[in-house]
Amino acid sequence: MKSITCLHPKYLIPVEPKATVLLAHSLVIQNGKIIAVLPESDVRLRYQDATHIELKEHALTPGFINLHAHSAMSLLRGLADDLALMDWLNHHIWPAEKKHVSDEFVLDGTLYAMAEMIRGGTTTVNDMYFHHQAVAKAGLQAGMRTIVGCSILEFPTGFAQNAGEYLDKAIEASTAFANQEGVGFRLAPHAPYTVADDTFRKIIELSEKHGMGIHCHIHETAEEVSDGLKQHGMKPLQRLHQLGLLSNRLIAAHMVHADDDDISLLSRTGVHIAHNPASNLKLASGFARIHAMQAAGINVGIGTDGAASNNKLDLLGDLRLAALLAKAQSNDPTALDAHSALEMATLSGARALGLEDQIGSLIAGKQADIIAIDLSTIETQPVFDPVSQIIYAAGREQVSHVWVNGQCLMENRQLTTLVEPNLLAKAKWWQSRIVND
Amino acid sequence: MKSITCLHPKYLIPVEPKATVLLAHSLVIQNGKIIAVLPESDVRLRYQDATHIELKEHALTPGFINLHAHSAMSLLRGLADDLALMDWLNHHIWPAEKKHVSDEFVLDGTLYAMAEMIRGGTTTVNDMYFHHQAVAKAGLQAGMRTIVGCSILEFPTGFAQNAGEYLDKAIEASTAFANQEGVGFRLAPHAPYTVADDTFRKIIELSEKHGMGIHCHIHETAEEVSDGLKQHGMKPLQRLHQLGLLSNRLIAAHMVHADDDDISLLSRTGVHIAHNPASNLKLASGFARIHAMQAAGINVGIGTDGAASNNKLDLLGDLRLAALLAKAQSNDPTALDAHSALEMATLSGARALGLEDQIGSLIAGKQADIIAIDLSTIETQPVFDPVSQIIYAAGREQVSHVWVNGQCLMENRQLTTLVEPNLLAKAKWWQSRIVND
Repeated sequence: MKSITCLHPKYLIPVEPKATVLLAHSLVIQNGKIIAVLPESDVRLRYQDATHIELKEHALTPGFINLHAHSAMSLLRGLADDLALMDWLNHHIWPAEKKHVSDEFVLDGTLYAMAEMIRGGTTTVNDMYFHHQAVAKAGLQAGMRTIVGCSILEFPTGFAQNAGEYLDKAIEASTAFANQEGVGFRLAPHAPYTVADDTFRKIIELSEKHGMGIHCHIHETAEEVSDGLKQHGMKPLQRLHQLGLLSNRLIAAHMVHADDDDISLLSRTGVHIAHNPASNLKLASGFARIHAMQAAGINVGIGTDGAASNNKLDLLGDLRLAALLAKAQSNDPTALDAHSALEMATLSGARALGLEDQIGSLIAGKQADIIAIDLSTIETQPVFDPVSQIIYAAGREQVSHVWVNGQCLMENRQLTTLVEPNLLAKAKWWQSRIVND
Repeated sequence: MKSITCLHPKYLIPVEPKATVLLAHSLVIQNGKIIAVLPESDVRLRYQDATHIELKEHALTPGFINLHAHSAMSLLRGLADDLALMDWLNHHIWPAEKKHVSDEFVLDGTLYAMAEMIRGGTTTVNDMYFHHQAVAKAGLQAGMRTIVGCSILEFPTGFAQNAGEYLDKAIEASTAFANQEGVGFRLAPHAPYTVADDTFRKIIELSEKHGMGIHCHIHETAEEVSDGLKQHGMKPLQRLHQLGLLSNRLIAAHMVHADDDDISLLSRTGVHIAHNPASNLKLASGFARIHAMQAAGINVGIGTDGAASNNKLDLLGDLRLAALLAKAQSNDPTALDAHSALEMATLSGARALGLEDQIGSLIAGKQADIIAIDLSTIETQPVFDPVSQIIYAAGREQVSHVWVNGQCLMENRQLTTLVEPNLLAKAKWWQSRIVND
C-alpha cells in the first residue's frame, strides 16, 4: 500500500466529463497511473495505509500540455523584442542561434525552460528545435513528458547541412530513445517557406514508416500566405494538402491566417491546431480564428511558442489570453468559456498528440499527470467558481504541486528533479557568452 | 539622517527621461519625497547614516497607476463570467449590488482590492464606485494613493435615489476629506446611457466650482454608440462634446469604439483615455485603437476595471496584454514597445489625473511612489533588457516592495498596512452572505 498516493483537494476538476467540478472527492495514484477518483470518505477508508496529501485550498486539474514550444530559446529571452517576425529571425535570432546553439546549449536551455514550465503547471511539452537528443535528455532529466519535434530545414545550421541530414538525425534520435518512457518524437518541418516539396514527401513517407507525428509552422503570417501564392500559385496550406501532409497526424502551429476555405480543409483532413496567442500578438502576426475553427470541429490546443517571442512559458496566462481574445474576436462573451479553455490546455492537447488515452484528464486508467493550484491567496478568494478562478484570476505562481507519471516534480513550489541555482548559474554563463561574442 | 531611506537597486528605471535604464544608481527618499537619484557610490558616501535597502537583483520603477477600477467589486469576482456586458450588468452584477452594497461592503471590498493591487505594484487607484467615503477610508487605511470617483446615475441604488442625491453625496465626501493627503475625488457620471443631459451640465458646473476632475465610461460597446445615435441623433461622444464635457479634466474609460473622427475630437479636446484591455476583451466589447490614439497625441493610461469583469487587478499583466494587442492590432510589432508600455502605467496615468508633477516617474522632487521588482527568478533570467523583462516576462508576484509617499506598504511580499488573514476572512463572510441570499 505504501506505493499508493492519495490526493485530497478541495476541488477536483477532471476535464472529463466536460465542465465537472467534484467536491469532497479524492484521486488515487499507483505505479504512475490514476487508479481511482472517488468520494473522499471512500478513499480515506479504502486506502488507509497510503500516502495522503492534503490540498485543502487547492484545485486539482490535469497538467497543462504545451503544444508548441522551442524550449531551448529560453536562453535568448529578451534578446530582441518589439520587432517583426522576419527581422527578428533574420537579424537577431538566427545569427545568435548560428553562433551558439549546440548540444550543450540545447540541453541547458531546455532544462531551464522545463523548470519554468513545471513551475507553471506544464507537464507535457511538444517541442520543436535542433539537437534532438539533447532535448530528449533534458526531458528525461526533468521528468517532464516530452515530445521532441525534430526540426527540418533546407538550409544549413550548426546541427545539419541539408534536409537529408536533419531527417537522418531525426530518425537516429527517435531510434536511440525508442524505449524511454515519457519521451516521444515528431518530424518537424520548420514551415512551408523553408522546406521543399521533395522534403515534405520524404517526411510523409518517414512519418508513416516510423509512426511519427508531424509538427509544422503553417500560415503564421500574412506574408507567408501571399509569398506562397506568388511562388507556388497556391496557398501554403493548399500546397501541403496536395503533397498529402494534412491529416490527423499533423499539428499545425499558429494558423493565424485561415479563411473559411482553409478552416473547411483543416476540418475535413483532421489537422490539429497549436494556438499561440501571445506570440501571434507579440510578433504582430495577427489574430487566429480559434472560435471559428472550434465551431468547425477542429481540435485546438495551446502553446507558448519559444520564450524569445512570448516571452513567458506560462500556459495558464496564455490560456486566459486565448479565452479573452476568443470573446472579443467572435464578438461573443460566452466564447471559449473557462471550462472550454481548461480543456484546450489539457485534453485537446492530448488529442493533438494522439495521447488522449494516456493523459489530458483525471480519470482512472490514465497516467498521473496532475497539478494542484492553490486558490487560498488574496488574488483568488472568494471562490464562487473554481474553474473561472483558475482561468481568469489565478497566476501560474499559484501552481503548488506537479506530478508527471505519478512522480512529483514540484512539491509546494520546490522543484524535485531540477536545481534552480544551478540552472540560473548556467543561464548567466550563456548570457555572458552571447553578449560578449 | 535617520528619516532618510536609500534604495540600491540593480536597475533604476525612472521613466523620465524616456527609455532610460540607470545602472549603479540609487534613489534617496526623505519626508515622503524622492530627494535624489544619483550614482550609488555618491549616495553611499553622502548618506552614510541613512537606512539603506539593498535590492541587488531588482528593478526600481514608479508605482503603477490603475486608471480605472471598481475596487469593491473584488468581492464579486467570478460570480458571473462568460456573459455579455448588459446581461452581466442587468441580471447578475446590479442585482447583487442592489442587495449587498453598503458602506461596510465597500470598505471591506476596497481594502481587499487594495491588498491585491499593492501585491501587484499598484500605488495609485482611480476608482469609480458608490459609498464614496468608504472608498476614501479604505485608501487612507491601506496607504494607497486613492482617487475616489463618485458614481452618478439617474436611477436609484441602495446609496442614493437620484442624480441630485449622488451629486450631493459626492460634494459632501470631497469636502469631508479635503485635507487628507493621498486622497482625491472625481465626479464619475457612470456613462452616457445612464446619465441625462441636465445631470452632465450640473457635473460640469460642479467640476469647475470644486476643481474636481471627471471620470466616465464612454463608448465601451458598439451598442452604446448605436443606441446613442438612435436616441440622440448623434454618437455619445458627440453629445458629450456638445454638453461641454470633453476637456483635459476628463478621463474617458474604455473608448473601445472610436473612429477617426472620434479620435480627432478626443485629441483636440485633450481628453485622457483609461484603456482597459482585459475587461474589453472579456466582455467582448472589442479592441480599443490605442495605437492610433497615441499617434494622434492622446494621452492613454491603463486600468484593470473591476475584478468582476477582468478578473485580476493585475496592472502588470494588463500592461503586457496592452502591449501585445497594440502590435497585432496595428500590424506593427514595434508598436507600444516595452518602455512605452511602462510609461502608460506610470507617467501617462499621472498626467491623466493631473498629478504628473507629483507622481509617475522617479525624479527628485516627486512623491516617493515606487516599486521594486525582483528579476532573480527562473522566469526572468537571464536579463538582456530589464524593461523588456518586466513588461513581457515578469509576473506581478515578482513585485517585492511597494512605497507610497515614502511609506513602505509591502516589504519582501509582506503587506505592512493590511492584514491578509483578516481580509480573507471578511471576503469569505461576504461570499456566504451573497451565496445564501
